[in-house]
Amino acid sequence: MNIELINTGSELMLGRVLNTHQQWLCRRLADLGYVVTRQVAVADAGHDIKQATREALVRADLVITTGGLGPTSDDITRDLIAQLLGKKLYEDPTIVQHIEQFFTARKRPMPASTRVQAMVPEGAIVLANPNGTAPGLAMKVEDGKWKPGNCDPISPFSTLNSQPSTYPKWLIMLPGPPRELRPMFNDAVVPLLHRVLPIESEYVCRTLRTVGIGESQVADKIGGPLRAALAQGLDLGFCAHIGAVDVRLAAHGPQATQIVRAAEAVVREQVGPNIFAEDDDTLEAVVVRLLAARKQTLALAESCTGGAIAHRLTNVPGASAVLLASLVTYANETKQTFLDVASATLTAHGAVSEAVAREMAEGACRKTGADFALSVTGIAGPGGGSEAKPVGTVFIGLASPDETIVLKQFNPFDRETFKNVTGTQALECLRQQLVRRA
Amino acid sequence: MNIELINTGSELMLGRVLNTHQQWLCRRLADLGYVVTRQVAVADAGHDIKQATREALVRADLVITTGGLGPTSDDITRDLIAQLLGKKLYEDPTIVQHIEQFFTARKRPMPASTRVQAMVPEGAIVLANPNGTAPGLAMKVEDGKWKPGNCDPISPFSTLNSQPSTYPKWLIMLPGPPRELRPMFNDAVVPLLHRVLPIESEYVCRTLRTVGIGESQVADKIGGPLRAALAQGLDLGFCAHIGAVDVRLAAHGPQATQIVRAAEAVVREQVGPNIFAEDDDTLEAVVVRLLAARKQTLALAESCTGGAIAHRLTNVPGASAVLLASLVTYANETKQTFLDVASATLTAHGAVSEAVAREMAEGACRKTGADFALSVTGIAGPGGGSEAKPVGTVFIGLASPDETIVLKQFNPFDRETFKNVTGTQALECLRQQLVRRA
Repeated sequence: MNIELINTGSELMLGRVLNTHQQWLCRRLADLGYVVTRQVAVADAGHDIKQATREALVRADLVITTGGLGPTSDDITRDLIAQLLGKKLYEDPTIVQHIEQFFTARKRPMPASTRVQAMVPEGAIVLANPNGTAPGLAMKVEDGKWKPGNCDPISPFSTLNSQPSTYPKWLIMLPGPPRELRPMFNDAVVPLLHRVLPIESEYVCRTLRTVGIGESQVADKIGGPLRAALAQGLDLGFCAHIGAVDVRLAAHGPQATQIVRAAEAVVREQVGPNIFAEDDDTLEAVVVRLLAARKQTLALAESCTGGAIAHRLTNVPGASAVLLASLVTYANETKQTFLDVASATLTAHGAVSEAVAREMAEGACRKTGADFALSVTGIAGPGGGSEAKPVGTVFIGLASPDETIVLKQFNPFDRETFKNVTGTQALECLRQQLVRRA
Repeated sequence: MNIELINTGSELMLGRVLNTHQQWLCRRLADLGYVVTRQVAVADAGHDIKQATREALVRADLVITTGGLGPTSDDITRDLIAQLLGKKLYEDPTIVQHIEQFFTARKRPMPASTRVQAMVPEGAIVLANPNGTAPGLAMKVEDGKWKPGNCDPISPFSTLNSQPSTYPKWLIMLPGPPRELRPMFNDAVVPLLHRVLPIESEYVCRTLRTVGIGESQVADKIGGPLRAALAQGLDLGFCAHIGAVDVRLAAHGPQATQIVRAAEAVVREQVGPNIFAEDDDTLEAVVVRLLAARKQTLALAESCTGGAIAHRLTNVPGASAVLLASLVTYANETKQTFLDVASATLTAHGAVSEAVAREMAEGACRKTGADFALSVTGIAGPGGGSEAKPVGTVFIGLASPDETIVLKQFNPFDRETFKNVTGTQALECLRQQLVRRA
C-alpha cells in the first residue's frame, strides 16, 4: 500500500516550527502496519498544495494532509482539494452546531469566520473534532474522477510508479494543532483505516539499540550472518546516534514474525553485549529500572559533563527513587569540599586523572551513602588541552560496594557531543556492571 | 529561486526519529534569504530517492539532500545520484587519508567499509567533514545533462512549474548526523551558495529574543508602532519557544538595512527589558558573559531540574571561569549534607517551599564562596503532586551578596518541558539581577 503524508504550513518552510506531525503520524501508522512512502511539506500556497496533492493522489492509495482547515485566510486546504476533486462544498448543520456549542462552552462569541469550517465537500466523511472547531474530512476518491478537475496532465513518474493498485483511493484531511490532530487520528482515523483499507499482509518491526560499537563495525559483524534473512526479505536499517547505533529489523508478509525473530537472534549472537535496549527504550531508563529493581541507589560526581548525566537520568520518571544526588564539581576546590578529593591528589596528578576520578567516585558514595557512584573528569574543550592530556581526554570512575574501576576514554568532539558521548559511556559502564551482578 | 530539500532515511518514514534537519536547514536558509519551496522525505530505497531527486531537479534551482552518505548498506544516496546524473565515481585519495586519520586519532582500526565514503562523482566539489568521515558533495547540474540518466520522461507538473530559471542548477548532498551536517553547512555550503547562487537583492534578517512575555503580548505591543516599517516592506515574524519568543525582522532590497534597523529600535523601545539576546545567542551564554565580565562566580542548587541548568551553562565554552559547582540534591538528606538545609525547615515547610529554596541558595553560596547562587525546588511530575502543591509548582531562589529573593512559579508541563521552562526562569531571574547591578 502506498501512503503519502502532506504537511502544509509556511512556518514549516521558514524553519520556525519543527514538523512533529511527520514523526507522530509516521510512527502511529507504522505501528499499525501502514508504512508512509513519502512525506511532503509545502507552504500555505494554493499552487503548491494543489500540485503536491495531485501528485500524491496518482501515486498513493492513501493521502493524509495536515493543516489548512482553520478559519483564517491562509487555511485553504479544504477549498483547494474540493476544487481539485471537482466536489461542491455544502454547509453541514451539525458542524455549525458543534462550533456554536464550542464557543458557548467557552463563553465567547462565535466569530463569523469560523463558520467556514462547517463546509464539507459532497460525499466526504466528517471526522469529529472534540478538541477544536475544524473537523477532519475523509473522502473516497473514485479513480479518474478527480483528473478532469485539474488542467495539467498526470505525472508519468507517478503513473509509472503506481502499480495497478488493489486498494480504493482515500484522502484524509486533518487539522494542524497536535492536540486536535492526535485524538482525531486515534479515535476516528484508525477505525476508518481498519474498515476501508485493512492491512492484509503482516508487518513486524524491531529495533535493537547498541552502544560502544561503531555503525560500520556493527554492519561488518552482522552483515554476513544476516545474508539468509535478507534473502528472505528482511529489511535491515541502521540509525547512528551519538555514541549509539540502532539496528532496525523489519519484514512484511506471513513470514514477517519468523524472519524478524530469526534476524534478532543473529544480531544478539553477534553484538549481544552491546545491546542495551529495544525499540524506544533509553540507556538512562534502563539504568534507572535496573537499580530500582534491586532497590539500589546512585550518586554522580560530574566535572566535565557539567550535569548532563544527572539531566538525562532525571528525565526518567521515577528517577528520584534511585538518584540521590549529582555533585557537579566544576571548580577544583569544590571537588575537595563536596567529595573529599585530597588536594595532594589534585596537585600530584591534576584534576583530569585516574586518581581524581577514583576519589571523586568513592567520595560521592561515602558522602551520599549510595550503592554506586559514577564520576567523570576530563577536558571538554575547546580550551584546556595539553600535549599529555589533549582535549577529549576523560576518566570515568565507577565505585560499587566491592570495587572501584576507572576507564580512560578519548572523545575529541565539540563540547555538547563530548558531554553526550561521555555520559553514554559512563551510563553504559554502570549498566554492564549491573548486568554482570544480576 | 526554487529550493527543494530531500531528507532520506527509512527511520524518518517509520517515525523513529524527528526530522530536525528540515527545521534547521529551512531556518538557516531563510535567514540567509533562501526560502525552501518544498521538503520531501523518503525511505532509503533506490527508487524513491531517485524519483524524488529527479522531480526536484526539474522544479528547483537548488536541491539539497541529507543522509545516505555513510558506510552501511542503506547509505545509497551518493551512488544513486551519480547514476541519475550519469557521472562516474572515483576514489579521492585526500578523503581516504582524512578517513584514515579520523580513525587513527580515535585509536580505532579503519573498517574497510568506510572507504566507500571516499568515492566522489566526477566534477563534484568535496565539502570537508571535520566531524565525521563522510564528506558532503556539491555538483553543478548542467541542464538536460542528467535527463538521459533516467528512463522515465520528466514530470509535466514540474516543467509547467519551473519558469525558465536564470539560475544555474546545483545539487548538494549533506551527511545525516546533525553534528556533521550543521558545521558543514555553515562553513562550506553558505560560502558556496554566496558564490554560485547569490541572492541578487540585499537581504537583512535580525532576530530579537525575548523571555518572560507571551507571543500575543509581544505582538500587541509592537504591532502598532511597527506599522510604518511594515508598510515599507518589513517582514515581521514570531517564533514562540517554550518560555521565550523570538521576534524576526527581515527586509529585502536596497532599503533593507534601514528598515530593519528602524524596526529593531521600535521593538527595543516596546519590549527592551524582555530582550535577552540577538539572533542565535542563548540565555545561558549571556549569563556566562555577564558574570565573566564582572569576574563574578555562580553556584547552583538544583532539585527538580536535576542538573538541567548546570548542563545548559556548561554547554557554553568558558563556563568554567564562572560556574563553581551545581549541587543536584535530589534526595532530601543530600539537601542537608551538601547545602546545610535545616531538617526542621524540611519538616516544617516540605522540600518544595520558599523556605527551602532560600536555604538551598544561601547554602550553595556559603559552601562554594560563589558571588551568586540559584536554587530550584519543585514538583516535575508525573507523580508527587498534592492539592496544596500540584505538579508544576516550583520555587526559584537567587542568593546574591546583599539579598536572597525567591520566586514562585507554576509550570504544569511534561517533565522535560518543566525542566526547560524552570531553567529559563531561573537564568532570566539572574540575568535581570546582573543587568540591574550593571
